[in-house]
Amino acid sequence: MEVSKNAIVLSSGGLDSTTVIAIAKDMGFKVYSLSFDYGQRHKYELNAARDIAKFFNVEKHLVIDINLRKIGGSALTDDIDVPDADSVTDEIPVTYVPARNTIFLSYAMAWAEVLKSSDIFIGVNAVDYSGYPDCRPEFIKSFEMMANLATKTGVEGTTNLKIQTPLQDMSKSEIIKKGVSLGVDYGKTISCYNPTAGLSCGKCDSCYLRVEGFRKANIEDPTKYL
Amino acid sequence: MEVSKNAIVLSSGGLDSTTVIAIAKDMGFKVYSLSFDYGQRHKYELNAARDIAKFFNVEKHLVIDINLRKIGGSALTDDIDVPDADSVTDEIPVTYVPARNTIFLSYAMAWAEVLKSSDIFIGVNAVDYSGYPDCRPEFIKSFEMMANLATKTGVEGTTNLKIQTPLQDMSKSEIIKKGVSLGVDYGKTISCYNPTAGLSCGKCDSCYLRVEGFRKANIEDPTKYL
Repeated sequence: MEVSKNAIVLSSGGLDSTTVIAIAKDMGFKVYSLSFDYGQRHKYELNAARDIAKFFNVEKHLVIDINLRKIGGSALTDDIDVPDADSVTDEIPVTYVPARNTIFLSYAMAWAEVLKSSDIFIGVNAVDYSGYPDCRPEFIKSFEMMANLATKTGVEGTTNLKIQTPLQDMSKSEIIKKGVSLGVDYGKTISCYNPTAGLSCGKCDSCYLRVEGFRKANIEDPTKYL
Repeated sequence: MEVSKNAIVLSSGGLDSTTVIAIAKDMGFKVYSLSFDYGQRHKYELNAARDIAKFFNVEKHLVIDINLRKIGGSALTDDIDVPDADSVTDEIPVTYVPARNTIFLSYAMAWAEVLKSSDIFIGVNAVDYSGYPDCRPEFIKSFEMMANLATKTGVEGTTNLKIQTPLQDMSKSEIIKKGVSLGVDYGKTISCYNPTAGLSCGKCDSCYLRVEGFRKANIEDPTKYL
């Protein structure tokens, strides 16, 4: 049996996951991009994810409605104010969404099984990130083990599911340089937790990491800030 | 800090998960029951789950829409015929839904974190079951490990999440006897994969296990069959 080259790539419309799409394509995978509508307060990122899917000519782009707002517990889904970067501490921030990456990867796992794909890509990153527990390598490894016990193909031994995290050890500026070398147009991506009319706030934790990344990469930032 | 006695119980409206609600209540937990609308072809089980939540006077019953039909791959969500029990083999059946329990437990994990609950109950059972990989103890154990790496409370060490599987080693007849002793009205539950106008088919794998369970328990089966 020929090895399947289908890959699921989790796509948020942001800088990291868009770079991951470019990397997966560059590795020769047929990309199936997957985005989630999770009651986030802005839809800009879902529109960005759709534009990026078109730009990269992916096999299929799926947006799944998962109503995390029903469960609550985060500044990104509830009506808690998003903090500025300078008020961010070492603690896990209020923008943390409970179980988000676990839920995202679970859906990716379901789609991977249907597509007979053994590769799921996720743009987690342990260098310039916001301190979310479900971005850490030990979480990813543990999810991968669980996934191979959960699925028909895993149990039958026909597919050994891999969670690919190509950005894991890269700084934001390295990610940007890699993406630019692969033709990513970062003007199409959005990172801001709190955009207004399509413009990034330039003040939240995510904007801060992005601005610093472009500065350190010595690449012009195409982002439109307020 | 007082130990929280909130528990999430996954509830399908079926025999097993309803027994689990009764067990969790009997153990002294405040029960939050969680059901999923996953594009299944019948809604009877969601109605049953609601009735059961009322019957047991749970703290809150949540139904979350998760559109697994978009992903496909199962006789329970697609338009594949559900097989009769006598055509069931040792292989993983077509009624298997990719990643279902992983997705269900992921949502339960999110809710547990918001409620500061350390207990998630699921009615998996390794004796009289249909051969799904995500019902096995090794899967559950692996999910539990992953969950404790994924969550803010797990990482901070304030909560050690436990996936409770009280039915794990019980036969269907033992489950029924336990439930009856705790006051479960199995007439409110539905197990059939393929009901017609609220009546169970009596022929699918799930009906077969149920009929046999009542027979072996020597308890009258309140189920209405076609």
